[in-house]
Amino acid sequence: MSNTLGERCRLTIFGQSHAPAIGGVIEGLPAGIAPDMAFISDFMARRAPGGALSTARKETDAAEIVAGLNEWGRTCGAPLAFIIRNSDQHSRDYSNLRDTPRPGHADYTAAVKYGGENDIRGGGQFSGRLTAPLCFAGALAMQLLKERGIAVKARVKSVAGIEDGPMDLAKPDLDAIIDGRLPCVDAEAARHMAEAIEAARAEGDSVGGVVECFALGLPAGLGEPMFDGVENRLARALFGIPAVRGVEFGLGFEAANLRGSQHNDAFYMEENRVATAANRHGGVLGGITSGMPVVVRAAFKPTPSIAKPQQSVSLSRRTDAELTIHGRHDPCVVPRAVPVVEAAVAWALYDMVL
Amino acid sequence: MSNTLGERCRLTIFGQSHAPAIGGVIEGLPAGIAPDMAFISDFMARRAPGGALSTARKETDAAEIVAGLNEWGRTCGAPLAFIIRNSDQHSRDYSNLRDTPRPGHADYTAAVKYGGENDIRGGGQFSGRLTAPLCFAGALAMQLLKERGIAVKARVKSVAGIEDGPMDLAKPDLDAIIDGRLPCVDAEAARHMAEAIEAARAEGDSVGGVVECFALGLPAGLGEPMFDGVENRLARALFGIPAVRGVEFGLGFEAANLRGSQHNDAFYMEENRVATAANRHGGVLGGITSGMPVVVRAAFKPTPSIAKPQQSVSLSRRTDAELTIHGRHDPCVVPRAVPVVEAAVAWALYDMVL
Amino acid sequence: MSNTLGERCRLTIFGQSHAPAIGGVIEGLPAGIAPDMAFISDFMARRAPGGALSTARKETDAAEIVAGLNEWGRTCGAPLAFIIRNSDQHSRDYSNLRDTPRPGHADYTAAVKYGGENDIRGGGQFSGRLTAPLCFAGALAMQLLKERGIAVKARVKSVAGIEDGPMDLAKPDLDAIIDGRLPCVDAEAARHMAEAIEAARAEGDSVGGVVECFALGLPAGLGEPMFDGVENRLARALFGIPAVRGVEFGLGFEAANLRGSQHNDAFYMEENRVATAANRHGGVLGGITSGMPVVVRAAFKPTPSIAKPQQSVSLSRRTDAELTIHGRHDPCVVPRAVPVVEAAVAWALYDMVL
Amino acid sequence: MSNTLGERCRLTIFGQSHAPAIGGVIEGLPAGIAPDMAFISDFMARRAPGGALSTARKETDAAEIVAGLNEWGRTCGAPLAFIIRNSDQHSRDYSNLRDTPRPGHADYTAAVKYGGENDIRGGGQFSGRLTAPLCFAGALAMQLLKERGIAVKARVKSVAGIEDGPMDLAKPDLDAIIDGRLPCVDAEAARHMAEAIEAARAEGDSVGGVVECFALGLPAGLGEPMFDGVENRLARALFGIPAVRGVEFGLGFEAANLRGSQHNDAFYMEENRVATAANRHGGVLGGITSGMPVVVRAAFKPTPSIAKPQQSVSLSRRTDAELTIHGRHDPCVVPRAVPVVEAAVAWALYDMVL
Repeated sequence: MSNTLGERCRLTIFGQSHAPAIGGVIEGLPAGIAPDMAFISDFMARRAPGGALSTARKETDAAEIVAGLNEWGRTCGAPLAFIIRNSDQHSRDYSNLRDTPRPGHADYTAAVKYGGENDIRGGGQFSGRLTAPLCFAGALAMQLLKERGIAVKARVKSVAGIEDGPMDLAKPDLDAIIDGRLPCVDAEAARHMAEAIEAARAEGDSVGGVVECFALGLPAGLGEPMFDGVENRLARALFGIPAVRGVEFGLGFEAANLRGSQHNDAFYMEENRVATAANRHGGVLGGITSGMPVVVRAAFKPTPSIAKPQQSVSLSRRTDAELTIHGRHDPCVVPRAVPVVEAAVAWALYDMVL
Repeated sequence: MSNTLGERCRLTIFGQSHAPAIGGVIEGLPAGIAPDMAFISDFMARRAPGGALSTARKETDAAEIVAGLNEWGRTCGAPLAFIIRNSDQHSRDYSNLRDTPRPGHADYTAAVKYGGENDIRGGGQFSGRLTAPLCFAGALAMQLLKERGIAVKARVKSVAGIEDGPMDLAKPDLDAIIDGRLPCVDAEAARHMAEAIEAARAEGDSVGGVVECFALGLPAGLGEPMFDGVENRLARALFGIPAVRGVEFGLGFEAANLRGSQHNDAFYMEENRVATAANRHGGVLGGITSGMPVVVRAAFKPTPSIAKPQQSVSLSRRTDAELTIHGRHDPCVVPRAVPVVEAAVAWALYDMVL
Repeated sequence: MSNTLGERCRLTIFGQSHAPAIGGVIEGLPAGIAPDMAFISDFMARRAPGGALSTARKETDAAEIVAGLNEWGRTCGAPLAFIIRNSDQHSRDYSNLRDTPRPGHADYTAAVKYGGENDIRGGGQFSGRLTAPLCFAGALAMQLLKERGIAVKARVKSVAGIEDGPMDLAKPDLDAIIDGRLPCVDAEAARHMAEAIEAARAEGDSVGGVVECFALGLPAGLGEPMFDGVENRLARALFGIPAVRGVEFGLGFEAANLRGSQHNDAFYMEENRVATAANRHGGVLGGITSGMPVVVRAAFKPTPSIAKPQQSVSLSRRTDAELTIHGRHDPCVVPRAVPVVEAAVAWALYDMVL
Repeated sequence: MSNTLGERCRLTIFGQSHAPAIGGVIEGLPAGIAPDMAFISDFMARRAPGGALSTARKETDAAEIVAGLNEWGRTCGAPLAFIIRNSDQHSRDYSNLRDTPRPGHADYTAAVKYGGENDIRGGGQFSGRLTAPLCFAGALAMQLLKERGIAVKARVKSVAGIEDGPMDLAKPDLDAIIDGRLPCVDAEAARHMAEAIEAARAEGDSVGGVVECFALGLPAGLGEPMFDGVENRLARALFGIPAVRGVEFGLGFEAANLRGSQHNDAFYMEENRVATAANRHGGVLGGITSGMPVVVRAAFKPTPSIAKPQQSVSLSRRTDAELTIHGRHDPCVVPRAVPVVEAAVAWALYDMVL
């Protein structure tokens, strides 16, 4: 089903941007877990809009757990269900978007698929707001992975073509990633990225970027051959985030340009553990973890909602039409996408670790 | 389950390189279909080894349908099951690979996962040979898609950094792709690629590349939001092919460097049909087809089996060890991967069309 | 997953008796459906406690749809999510039930399964209250089945060994079933059943019974061979209702005592339609509907919660212990189970019709 | 999917009675298992036709494992695939059955479902022969359950209304079940059953019966609430066996006639283990095992293929028609169903134990 993620532990996400609520149901969690609500709340706040680089919209992502906990606040074996009420809904008229679909958005494809019954208000179920339940689940997964010594952390690899500094894929220093709306190892790069975002906004335009995520501490032997390998699972999760256009592991597309002798990671004994000096394979061989860090990147397209007038069509009149999008929009989704990538990766990995 | 692909129509692949057989079971096919065995056989032959650019091994990919057809040779509603006997098995000693895992292969990760019980002979279940059942199913899907006016065709986008010529993503001329082991639109590029592969082979090395696949004729409105969109489904299928390191749609990673005003595809009316002049979105918006060609690329790493001596470890002695791989190996997986990519894409799309 | 029902259209139920809420998420509904909230509410009221034969507890089963509808109140293609707040929770001390499990209840087995973390308050996730979300979904399914000319209706076949009058399985007169807490075709039988329930209650005891459900108007050809036949699907749904101990179709267990010549239903042409005069096969042959009414029965054990003192154990002291259950309990689950059976059958059938 | 059984460990069955082969694919088995082929073969022989009470057909159920084993004959982590060639196929003309469906068979419903493309030869995918792959998997499951101290054994509870002697559901003496085509604890009852079967055969008729299955040694705490409890899982498996019309647990339908004080099983301490003196609950409370024996019964209808002439219809002429079934048929499916019930129960339980 399209709104579910996970095999052993399954997250089902529901909601639309302007429905009464969004939320999720998590089946298969072990009993006895006490969700760290402060951690989850802080994590979700990273995704929430706000700050210089983001939209002026205010979203209250306060999640209420409505089922799944016992009298001690621990999971009881029943599904964990949570809802997040939608509050900041502008009940304006969306009929123009029904007729004139926004380029780069799902307005047109959803209208076809659902025969015009799709909820177009605020993007409906295609809204980036639907990543909030994923962040709830991802934060919970991060809490549980941490107990197993597994850390998941992402950085902004690039925005608008501006690259962050290099990181060692074999021994990435996660502490070197500087917290902030644009977590980078190179503060200067982050500043240039922010400037590029501001410049795009000023021009009624938008920019894209790449998020790189690391998972450290995973044991070797996780994942399955063929269609349920680490790559398959993570790719399914990551392509569920709006605006993702590509996913790659290790060296990714760059590997296609190398020779085997350049790309193969030689094994060696590191103390009593099998390791590789480089990590071009991104911690996955044959779909199964090698014990080296899992390294994955997701490419985000520039926000399709831009202030500049655009060409579109009138679906009712079957003619070309010009469209101007009003309202508040992120000039770049990357800052808010960083925790979402972490959440997707953490959830997919937790499901495999379980 | 890791060996299954598809929701409505489900393919389950089984086998190992040196087991008595490999094969598959297809559940959910409509009744009354007459598989075009000549077409399937020809398609599978494209994947089979042979030719100048490939290994000297001989694999007979003759598939026998053992169940699922009625007395008229048409599907009867029961699962379609087929087996391909393994014949060219060299029953040599594989114990050295058990002890000294090949860099870039699943030898080590499978040994950890399966406690040393993995079938290491010829790569076992991780062998590229397991893509033969996928090609069987993919060829069948192509036959059925063709009846609906849908064409799936791939080309070699690059090998060893050598790029094929440009194609129009909005109106790709599939007939311009020149048949052969390296299907390209630019014959010269194909020749250079072949030379690069030969050069790598001569040096006991290998090269990688990128395969680009087009699906034409899909109706708008296919696919689901969130985790079962066209991208999620195709990515899950494509990452199931050995050696794939990245998957991207439309402009893919390049989109991350563009501005919204550059990347958005404006809609316009093409006769009475909504279309876009460019196809940077790769035929998918919000996980749902737009009616424009679906464009997807998969990056293949260089073949990890190279003749050059490599560093590895002895798992029994827990020491570093040198490894020399003997035997016949493709110096580049891309030529044989082209039909496999087509098969994965066709199967995933057919499952959605159904 | 244990809390989900349906393949094409999937219901996921969440909640515990004393959690903040219970509810459900429905994935896969077609877009454009306007749920008939008055019908759903009336249907759910049939399941709610109240009336002479039931507990004195008051449960407000007011379902709030929090997601899945567009601005016109119709399904928009996104999952339909609904919650039912729990209000009448007696926050008394349940620690005695943690230590001294109730015979016939899941207290002991859940304690073992969840390591003592199960929610024991009001029966937690094992409470009959969790059938309310099933009734919500079932009522929606009945609304949608009705649009296709399919009716689902159940009656009380027996209570405490008292049998309702006969019905023709081939042409059951659903209108002859007299509405009420004990829907029967024989008013006298219903009265005797009610007396038996009252007598049991007066003695601090309980009784069981059998519910028989009919589905009329189904086309021939629904269902699958082997493990997804009508029987498999309905049995999975019905055994999800607390207290069900047996499920049978057509003549059920009685068929085991007949000869083939007595049991086989001869086909004949009824106008231009293939029919059978009798319907001992209960509308299903080979897992697939025949076009005759589907007939299924579920046996309910007597309510395990009885006022009489019972023998149990102290899990902490590992000794035998006497238990007296306080509180309000239905002396017979059958009256409230009738709509639940209808809901389970309707949901499972709708999923197959879709 | 209709041909698959199991969540953690999934069996997919394929084949038709007169296809080249039947067989199965098992995904999710742990690596390192050495299938006991002698035990499996002996188990499958119990299901094979032969003996006085069965058909004269000869079926060779020799299963060949074609994939999934390593060089040492142990599971390697890849799916275990096996095929059973069909040999004793009478290639006679089945066109009369296409036109005149047999009462009590799936001929008509399959014709509707598959638009006349169903394989009618020998019953196609609806043939009892398809239980052979289930027996293969069930025998493997029994081998693996035995290693965990779990025994699964069934007996004939009744044939043609003739009841076997009583067994203690709390402490069933499995050794008291006398091996043979009609395993019973009462040899005299078995003899009467055999006579009833012979009498029916002599008259061109058939009889039905009930099989009762016990699973001993299961730990408490297996199974899930709601829709994946032990009852749901076993019922789904058992209703997959042709001719099953009812499934019940513990006292089953009889429980509906009892009072709570009669039906509840009091807990007591048996040494340091929680137990119940009686086992009317059949080892399952709330869908979860209690540690007491699981007791389940399946009712089999009389074989629908009888020699007596029967009324049916001509589908082509849309008129009534008389049908006489020729060929060899079991006058009672119960003798061969006993191992099939054991297999279904063993497989479903193994999947839960895993």
